[in-house]
Amino acid sequence: MLGNLKQKVYEANLKLVEYKLVLFTWGNVSEIDRETGLVVIKPSGVSYEKMKPEDMVVMNLDGEKVEGELNPSSDTPTHLELYRRFPEIGGVAHTHSTFAVSFAQAASDIPCYGTTHADFAFGSVPCTRDLTKEEIEGEYELNTGKVIAECFETRNIDYNAVPAVLVRSHGPFTWGKDGYDAAKNSAILEEVAKMSYLSRTLDAEPANEHILSKHYYRKHGANAYYGQK
Amino acid sequence: MLGNLKQKVYEANLKLVEYKLVLFTWGNVSEIDRETGLVVIKPSGVSYEKMKPEDMVVMNLDGEKVEGELNPSSDTPTHLELYRRFPEIGGVAHTHSTFAVSFAQAASDIPCYGTTHADFAFGSVPCTRDLTKEEIEGEYELNTGKVIAECFETRNIDYNAVPAVLVRSHGPFTWGKDGYDAAKNSAILEEVAKMSYLSRTLDAEPANEHILSKHYYRKHGANAYYGQK
Amino acid sequence: MLGNLKQKVYEANLKLVEYKLVLFTWGNVSEIDRETGLVVIKPSGVSYEKMKPEDMVVMNLDGEKVEGELNPSSDTPTHLELYRRFPEIGGVAHTHSTFAVSFAQAASDIPCYGTTHADFAFGSVPCTRDLTKEEIEGEYELNTGKVIAECFETRNIDYNAVPAVLVRSHGPFTWGKDGYDAAKNSAILEEVAKMSYLSRTLDAEPANEHILSKHYYRKHGANAYYGQK
Amino acid sequence: MLGNLKQKVYEANLKLVEYKLVLFTWGNVSEIDRETGLVVIKPSGVSYEKMKPEDMVVMNLDGEKVEGELNPSSDTPTHLELYRRFPEIGGVAHTHSTFAVSFAQAASDIPCYGTTHADFAFGSVPCTRDLTKEEIEGEYELNTGKVIAECFETRNIDYNAVPAVLVRSHGPFTWGKDGYDAAKNSAILEEVAKMSYLSRTLDAEPANEHILSKHYYRKHGANAYYGQK
Repeated sequence: MLGNLKQKVYEANLKLVEYKLVLFTWGNVSEIDRETGLVVIKPSGVSYEKMKPEDMVVMNLDGEKVEGELNPSSDTPTHLELYRRFPEIGGVAHTHSTFAVSFAQAASDIPCYGTTHADFAFGSVPCTRDLTKEEIEGEYELNTGKVIAECFETRNIDYNAVPAVLVRSHGPFTWGKDGYDAAKNSAILEEVAKMSYLSRTLDAEPANEHILSKHYYRKHGANAYYGQK
Repeated sequence: MLGNLKQKVYEANLKLVEYKLVLFTWGNVSEIDRETGLVVIKPSGVSYEKMKPEDMVVMNLDGEKVEGELNPSSDTPTHLELYRRFPEIGGVAHTHSTFAVSFAQAASDIPCYGTTHADFAFGSVPCTRDLTKEEIEGEYELNTGKVIAECFETRNIDYNAVPAVLVRSHGPFTWGKDGYDAAKNSAILEEVAKMSYLSRTLDAEPANEHILSKHYYRKHGANAYYGQK
Repeated sequence: MLGNLKQKVYEANLKLVEYKLVLFTWGNVSEIDRETGLVVIKPSGVSYEKMKPEDMVVMNLDGEKVEGELNPSSDTPTHLELYRRFPEIGGVAHTHSTFAVSFAQAASDIPCYGTTHADFAFGSVPCTRDLTKEEIEGEYELNTGKVIAECFETRNIDYNAVPAVLVRSHGPFTWGKDGYDAAKNSAILEEVAKMSYLSRTLDAEPANEHILSKHYYRKHGANAYYGQK
Repeated sequence: MLGNLKQKVYEANLKLVEYKLVLFTWGNVSEIDRETGLVVIKPSGVSYEKMKPEDMVVMNLDGEKVEGELNPSSDTPTHLELYRRFPEIGGVAHTHSTFAVSFAQAASDIPCYGTTHADFAFGSVPCTRDLTKEEIEGEYELNTGKVIAECFETRNIDYNAVPAVLVRSHGPFTWGKDGYDAAKNSAILEEVAKMSYLSRTLDAEPANEHILSKHYYRKHGANAYYGQK
């Protein structure tokens, strides 16, 4: 079942290695088939070198395993909550990439310091609140997804325009139209986070809104003119 | 038309990848044929792996596409303005290299902290002013070129002696006698920017003018004695 | 004697190179055979490229060489003291990895700033006190092991839950169930140290205890649910 | 003439590339044949990829070219002065490695923060004074060598125990028993400089003298016990 999607999710997971975003078995990418509501995700704790396409695990949106010999990523309930709450996304990626994690550990948004960021996201990449003791000791991974969605709702951020979040004390999740796109957004986020670290330690101020709008809409939406048609 | 130049510009663009200055499709290099006034430039948003020499786009200095199936880089009007305003340059490169961007985002010149910088540029690499709302919402990429030229004119900087600029909140443009040279200058600028970041966070003061002059003229101009004849 | 273990220790030492943790001949990994009490360790000052499995040196826990043509690593008495004092460990690794050394040189623990750390260690990675003049001028490497053990005892840290230490003004030692595991923990420690450096310079506070417990016990102990069975 | 030495100096120069210490044509290594007083050095501004062993230039200690088609490195008079003033050294290397240059640009010694440094050098790696206007406008490269020697004499530093210097506003020179050793010391200095940068920004204090002596004499001198006999 979903052989093509398993192959695609397998390749998207290997992109995390190619982009140098993961150490050992860390990180995971999933993709949803919106027609059937089935999600394909990396198995938990399996090495990227030994992993095969058929090892990918199929879940439904109720959190039940539909196919697969292996345990799905322990972060699966977070992915599923993001698919339920952000109905237009097609893929999710999670890494412990160095600079993005460091902002998450510092409980800091990544503000938009310039056009590299604006090409990627329309405004700050937000950092969530801490999970409560109850949220941590309960359904922790599900609650992580809920806190991400709450963050976007409370702060009125459009998840289509900002395809990334930092979970406080933890690290980044990114999303996109499919698994490849989600993995690519993890790579861009890490580079943006590195530039933001350097800019902040050089006492930068966030960029003004005109340049943010210009660059975001140069690349995204109906009037985009970057790239080829 | 201009087959040799397309090949050369293609190769100069790939140098950006070799020098580890670009992520994904970011960055672009162009070169001008001063006899015909034609500029060859990378197409917009095309991956470096798939790009072929014949994909390079030919523009004239009025901003009209003369040859090519693909859209030219969205930064093309900036390149063209630099060729119009800096009549002695033969190639232009633009990247989002990490440390140079960080200085641009911090709205900071890169002062000359030592001889690595002085070997490359005679004095600070300047950071432009912000573009105004009108400049951004108007012909943005053209206005970017105008603001660069204005920066060199206002501050009385010789573009032949300082082959690089930081566009505020954006990133570096570099130039040289051809596309290869412009790409090489992007690599040197990034290394100089990294050293400057470290020096500044170690509380360095700019180098004195004697050592700046010595190293600059050791490598450049009529009395240069670095290298072979 | 112990041919298989020599092969394994050889490979574990090469992992330090693969993980980019060592320069030249720096670093060493050992493993103990608890049944015989014999320890296999890298020879001193031999290059990783030329080293062969049969060059590994066999020591007993009294510090006597049992087999091997070459001198054992000069840090051998530290390894042996760790095997004596931490009876449940099977392998020890020592590197001069950049970020971990920097915390050791700054005489600073690495506090737990987030889940990447909590997945690895339950609480701060401690930094030992300075050795005294007498300890340094006496049996220095043995005393280094004693000061590590003292640090864990005095501060009541469980060496099974925190598989790493920073020796003040020196650098990290890590341990695990065997030599591979010890080497892997050196790689994780270095990544955690890098994130901690960045987090600290972004003014992070340590993570709360709930998230620390959750992540540690998600991966370790009887109720772990990360990975496959 | 000196064919073996040319081969050796050629290889030692390529080590700078292997150690990732140079960009483009930057950097140079030389070695002296103390019997004849002849010095073999890299030609100026030649790329490491195209350079051949027979391109190496032979100089005498009076600064005269004895053999070679190409111009010697522009830093040759500095090398020659070091061979004259430091009669026990056999090789000299010069790079613009990132972290060592940054300390030179910050006009800062690299203090001994720990054992990685102490294994390499007995005490701070000194940073010279600025050259005067007259020294810069006169025989600049010769005067650079004189200022290095003055630094060691004035501060009473043993050049055999500290095989490296930072020339203020410029960068590092290192030396050793031959060209290979000088190049290797450049690599160690860069790693030590990186650790020192991180340690200093973590508010480290220099290590105490006991640990410095212990580690230095563990590896150097008559009572060294690191490595093999």
